[in-house]
Amino acid sequence: MAPKINGFGIMPEDTRICVVMVGLPARGKSYIAQRAQRYLKWLSIPAATFNVGSYRRENAPHPSASFFDTNNAEGERQRRAAADAAVSDMLAWFKNGGVVGILDATNSTKQRRKWVLERVAKEGIEVIFVESRCDDEELIMANIRDVKTSSPDYSGQDPEAAAQDFRDRIRNYEKVYKSINDDGDEDHLTYLKIMNVGRQVFINRIQDYLQSRVVYFLMNLHIRPRSIWLSRHGESMLNLEGRIGGDAKLSHRGQEYAEKLPELVLQSVGSDRPLTVWTSTLQRTIATAKHLPKHYNQLQWKALDELDAGVCDGMTYQEIADQYPEDFQARDEDKYNYRYRGGESYRDVVIRLEPIIMELERSEDILIISHQAVIRCIYAYFMQKTQEESPWVPVPLHTLMKLTPRAYGTELETYRANIKAVSTWRGKGSTAKHEDPAPEGGI
Amino acid sequence: MAPKINGFGIMPEDTRICVVMVGLPARGKSYIAQRAQRYLKWLSIPAATFNVGSYRRENAPHPSASFFDTNNAEGERQRRAAADAAVSDMLAWFKNGGVVGILDATNSTKQRRKWVLERVAKEGIEVIFVESRCDDEELIMANIRDVKTSSPDYSGQDPEAAAQDFRDRIRNYEKVYKSINDDGDEDHLTYLKIMNVGRQVFINRIQDYLQSRVVYFLMNLHIRPRSIWLSRHGESMLNLEGRIGGDAKLSHRGQEYAEKLPELVLQSVGSDRPLTVWTSTLQRTIATAKHLPKHYNQLQWKALDELDAGVCDGMTYQEIADQYPEDFQARDEDKYNYRYRGGESYRDVVIRLEPIIMELERSEDILIISHQAVIRCIYAYFMQKTQEESPWVPVPLHTLMKLTPRAYGTELETYRANIKAVSTWRGKGSTAKHEDPAPEGGI
Repeated sequence: MAPKINGFGIMPEDTRICVVMVGLPARGKSYIAQRAQRYLKWLSIPAATFNVGSYRRENAPHPSASFFDTNNAEGERQRRAAADAAVSDMLAWFKNGGVVGILDATNSTKQRRKWVLERVAKEGIEVIFVESRCDDEELIMANIRDVKTSSPDYSGQDPEAAAQDFRDRIRNYEKVYKSINDDGDEDHLTYLKIMNVGRQVFINRIQDYLQSRVVYFLMNLHIRPRSIWLSRHGESMLNLEGRIGGDAKLSHRGQEYAEKLPELVLQSVGSDRPLTVWTSTLQRTIATAKHLPKHYNQLQWKALDELDAGVCDGMTYQEIADQYPEDFQARDEDKYNYRYRGGESYRDVVIRLEPIIMELERSEDILIISHQAVIRCIYAYFMQKTQEESPWVPVPLHTLMKLTPRAYGTELETYRANIKAVSTWRGKGSTAKHEDPAPEGGI
Repeated sequence: MAPKINGFGIMPEDTRICVVMVGLPARGKSYIAQRAQRYLKWLSIPAATFNVGSYRRENAPHPSASFFDTNNAEGERQRRAAADAAVSDMLAWFKNGGVVGILDATNSTKQRRKWVLERVAKEGIEVIFVESRCDDEELIMANIRDVKTSSPDYSGQDPEAAAQDFRDRIRNYEKVYKSINDDGDEDHLTYLKIMNVGRQVFINRIQDYLQSRVVYFLMNLHIRPRSIWLSRHGESMLNLEGRIGGDAKLSHRGQEYAEKLPELVLQSVGSDRPLTVWTSTLQRTIATAKHLPKHYNQLQWKALDELDAGVCDGMTYQEIADQYPEDFQARDEDKYNYRYRGGESYRDVVIRLEPIIMELERSEDILIISHQAVIRCIYAYFMQKTQEESPWVPVPLHTLMKLTPRAYGTELETYRANIKAVSTWRGKGSTAKHEDPAPEGGI
């Protein structure tokens, strides 16, 4: 009976939203757009970003600042054509089932916003303007540094010259930039102003559920640099037996990992950086966190508990295949959606992890010690793995992962403790107790 | 394995929040406080409201406006004593496991806010100030009308004199009222300003997950008058057989109800009032909505589908008692928390209904056509039923309920179609196909 649901649990079929970014260059617009897209897709909401800059680059791959001068008629024409092409592609994408389309551009004048609103609203699509404002010079400089090294506009150029040119480009935008509703004549718009990346938020005329969810996510974002560390618990007594679930103690080698973990963490985090540790409520993750420095805050989240295997809790894969052969096969065929009898599916886990992801987006440095399926879902969020891939990702025991969100994508570093452990990865169709992961799938 | 979770899915054990209301009289503060408390309790978060006015009334049950004049030293002393008693009781309540305490008072000066912050923060409790501002005269007048008829301060008094006195009281507050951070020296506070009840929202320094959830709820509230109508689908073919779940067609009498429903609705709603109709995705609710006026918008929500009975879907209670006797008994012992094998518990349904409740709080007039367990959960939200009571509430077929949220509590009206239907209510321990509800429990 239970229909497939997306990560918000519900969705009226016909809600479609265009998120129109607004703001000067180097205010984190692309970062915000990319984050929103990743979050929505992880929750099974079709989402895509249309970056006007990349359309513009097709004709003007390395423009200098003067290209963005409003007195440069040819630059102005090309930039308008790029915006037009991006909006056209976005509208075509909506016709093919898109739900949240993000228009990533400066949209810094009232005229441009009016033009976008008219084109999009005509198709029955709701429009939210999301303006990122920033008067924190340090944040802006960090963004400029990031752009000069990573933007295709400046690829192969001298970094200092690139930074100077980019500052000149910003100045050209500043000449015409008008913050939303600063003159009071855009009060009818639905908009969100994010000031200094979430420290203050101003919300105007939010209308429906999906809008309010998008707004809620965006108001929780920040762009301060940070990392997230992920580890499974140390090897457990049930791991040794090839049994899933349960609430077992650590094995001898699992305890060794718990003792070694502080060293791995300090090596990766550095000794002077404060860290918050999240574990599940199961004893194997709590025991794994036991030897970490006492000045780290520790929190137990029920949402970080392992996928509930229901009636199969504590069984080996062979026992499951023997006692529930149809279930065993159904799970392999659609592991993301298969729900254990009386238990959970990966989809269920994603839904209960949504608040964890929201909290991760709000937070600074966090170390999460959790379980295979849960870490797969969190990993899938940051590394943008599909629903087909994520339930099969190998997450070896006794390994610390460091994820660092960047403007585009997430960086991954892996630290192995060199303490032996059984493998708990399982290939499709296999009932082996301990099997080595397929080499191509590895983290 | 799956631990009991609250409606947010997670909660670090040690987060406690004091929500401090701020604003002039007649700005909907008590309404907001009461709504937040109801929402949190429904989601299993311990919440309580401490209304300074009711503490003050112990000494000054019917004060005139001059009592609230800042030049009235005795009035000032009594009001401070009331605030002190309310805060003391709130702190004691936090010590006994309270999670979100709401201090309902004007807190209209910087000094008063500083005093509350210091007392509360000292106990390790986070403070969010929630200011309700309003410059919409119509809204204020509606609130004044409401207060003069329902406030204990004016009970038994002439309504016109009461309204005049209340306006004078507001004027006394206006003399000293200072909006949060208007002078720029309260920028360190975590606060939320709600302008004209949700049309605009300003958020400053929201820190953690629970805070952000409370803020998210409050930013979705409005105080425009409206009603919510609830109906189950018409009698279904499976209802006739005493079978639960499924996706059956309407019985002949169920179709009669669908044909009669427009008349019931028009009688209750009035013909000129626009209405939005929400159904589940199951055919018996969609068929029940079929004859409603064509100009009503209709939406299907998956979240409104009936509680998933898992392996028991389509069975009679007798069959469940025979095949799963332990489950049958376990369910009766704790019906709110019992999860059908491969299916759902009432607690699960509440969690998936959270977005529906959020959307109901955002919305104007809505008619919901759904199912017994789902309507019980929605009813429990509005009528503040406990988790013990809500799964047993009789919700007869062929009956329309009208819920009208008021400043204090929700009004209920019931319209019966006078079309016979089987009873689907079941008493504890019973396996009867059709049983009349216990008379004392009825809606």
